[in-house]
Amino acid sequence: MEPMSDNVFNFSAGPAGLPRDVLKKAQSELLDWNDLGTSVMEISHRSKQFIQVADEAEQDLRDLLNIPSNYKVLFCQGGARAQFSAVPLNLLGGKDKATYIDAGYWAQSAVDEAEKYCTPVVYQAKTEIEGKVAVQPASEWFIDPDSAYVHFCPNETIDGIEINELPDTDLPIVADMSSTILSRQIDVSKYGVIYAGAQKNIGPAGICIAIVRDDLLELASDVLPTFLNYKVLAEKESMYNTPPTFAWYLSGLVFKWLKELGGVKAIERINREKAAILYDYIDASPFYNNNVHADNRSLMNVPFQLAKPELDAKFLELADERGLRALKGHRAVGGMRASIYNAMPVEGVQALVSFMKEFEAEYA
Amino acid sequence: MEPMSDNVFNFSAGPAGLPRDVLKKAQSELLDWNDLGTSVMEISHRSKQFIQVADEAEQDLRDLLNIPSNYKVLFCQGGARAQFSAVPLNLLGGKDKATYIDAGYWAQSAVDEAEKYCTPVVYQAKTEIEGKVAVQPASEWFIDPDSAYVHFCPNETIDGIEINELPDTDLPIVADMSSTILSRQIDVSKYGVIYAGAQKNIGPAGICIAIVRDDLLELASDVLPTFLNYKVLAEKESMYNTPPTFAWYLSGLVFKWLKELGGVKAIERINREKAAILYDYIDASPFYNNNVHADNRSLMNVPFQLAKPELDAKFLELADERGLRALKGHRAVGGMRASIYNAMPVEGVQALVSFMKEFEAEYA
Repeated sequence: MEPMSDNVFNFSAGPAGLPRDVLKKAQSELLDWNDLGTSVMEISHRSKQFIQVADEAEQDLRDLLNIPSNYKVLFCQGGARAQFSAVPLNLLGGKDKATYIDAGYWAQSAVDEAEKYCTPVVYQAKTEIEGKVAVQPASEWFIDPDSAYVHFCPNETIDGIEINELPDTDLPIVADMSSTILSRQIDVSKYGVIYAGAQKNIGPAGICIAIVRDDLLELASDVLPTFLNYKVLAEKESMYNTPPTFAWYLSGLVFKWLKELGGVKAIERINREKAAILYDYIDASPFYNNNVHADNRSLMNVPFQLAKPELDAKFLELADERGLRALKGHRAVGGMRASIYNAMPVEGVQALVSFMKEFEAEYA
Repeated sequence: MEPMSDNVFNFSAGPAGLPRDVLKKAQSELLDWNDLGTSVMEISHRSKQFIQVADEAEQDLRDLLNIPSNYKVLFCQGGARAQFSAVPLNLLGGKDKATYIDAGYWAQSAVDEAEKYCTPVVYQAKTEIEGKVAVQPASEWFIDPDSAYVHFCPNETIDGIEINELPDTDLPIVADMSSTILSRQIDVSKYGVIYAGAQKNIGPAGICIAIVRDDLLELASDVLPTFLNYKVLAEKESMYNTPPTFAWYLSGLVFKWLKELGGVKAIERINREKAAILYDYIDASPFYNNNVHADNRSLMNVPFQLAKPELDAKFLELADERGLRALKGHRAVGGMRASIYNAMPVEGVQALVSFMKEFEAEYA
């Protein structure tokens, strides 16, 4: 049975679409993996077969992001919200302050959690330029020199904002890359900690990658739950607890898919092409609008509004009939949102734009 | 392709085997779930389709365990180790003490973590009766009246010990049921909190059930990470964070499988039959030994030793050739261990005993 899915394009913001080939492989071996006669999710995380899965996933991610050898790669339980706690509890090291650059919903959520453990020094980086939402240049950001670290979120899923600069500081830079990791090239050596919930560009929900510079492993608070302790996870190779093995395995398949496709450089080119198709059409249309300044538009999440919001429901209904799924904007902002993560093919964006044109012609 | 797996029996202690029918259903709809043209793991946790999955899983678990309405059912990230931290951080409520009944490896691990947050009053319940490992009767257990709660682990996966009594106390009883939940009937109303990592009797690793009595939702510590906060999870219906949706869905399929099979009463009868087949054979044989007293033998995890430990490797090799997987004992205790959770059919235990007989005849 060939499922209908080859004509469906899934714009979900997360949990998001996975590469079709990855799901097909997972399906084919779900009952009998590696000739064991069991599923990969039914074997011990300490078995030699699973350890090979784990090691290959780590090495593939290291290859993809060119991660230096003085960084640990951790496969953590939970997602980014768990890291909102784990970051201050692992990194404050007795200090009382950390700087948080705030440019959207998720950066703000990280601040809310950090307030339990320190005094976050919040720099409001969101601004308006020529009537569009924008982010102030990094040279303007105030960074408190007494901070244990500087936290920011380079891609805001809900706001559709991307930050293409790094904080200008010698302090450890901590980045929530949940919705941007592996979408474009980065220089890991400039960061102290990079973390990313899997459910956008990596795998299914329930696993989170943390990439941690060695010198930051010694700062844990006494009240840090051990299963969130970077040093313990590093020493135990992310197996202090039973890890989410199936999610780890699927993440590994995604890494292999991405390597075969040419790695991050190749996917960045595709992602820029996809985003350009969509933003160019929106900008040319009087009916659709994206309110983010060109310099800060997200490559991954494209929110847009119809000139007639009363047509939102109709738009969503007809799009869904066409197999264009999950285009409803986040409840905090309304409107539409197309999330076009790595797994979204160019054809998906083309299909969306075709539909948007037809809808505009009919209803504008 | 019909996989070889129908002749394979998986005795893994966890991540453990799942019901074959559940995996087959998951496989059949992995690419196209609910006619959406996408996988269930690719949709928003806030979509109406996933919320139905979530609600049904909760209701089915409530039906299976007859959970009273004054208990919340939470689907948490992580596993039991996360709860080792979450329990004191949620329940101490300003008290400095909690009683921990210690009868094995996992109870002790819970104590180690609790030491970060309070002074655990540890009662060593493990003893020896007639040369066998046993647990002292509950009437002997010392419970510090100043405790915020009494924690115990009714089934010790590694030691193969089961406790069939409850602490005799009016304090909230907290039970780590990771390896016993849904294996036999319990009276939930006697507990304050029941928690269980999924990867034995529920689903894949990476999700953990917590069943929490309403009056215990108000005691959280200021330093409790929000994603572990029972009250927040209850208020947000376990969607404060993006939950591990695929693990939740699979858990729901396991609950439906168990209901169809006749529920916990029916599986308990099967589990007692399976355990009896194995223990009876071990007791009758001079070559195999289980060192746990009959009153405290686990229904789920059966450790056993060969009279000639130098044959351990041979035993494991030949068993594996026969499709009897993952019989190696935990590294902390050595020997063999057969985990015979709900998903293990009677035929699997019969196949194991047949093999053990043949091995004994050949090598004893």
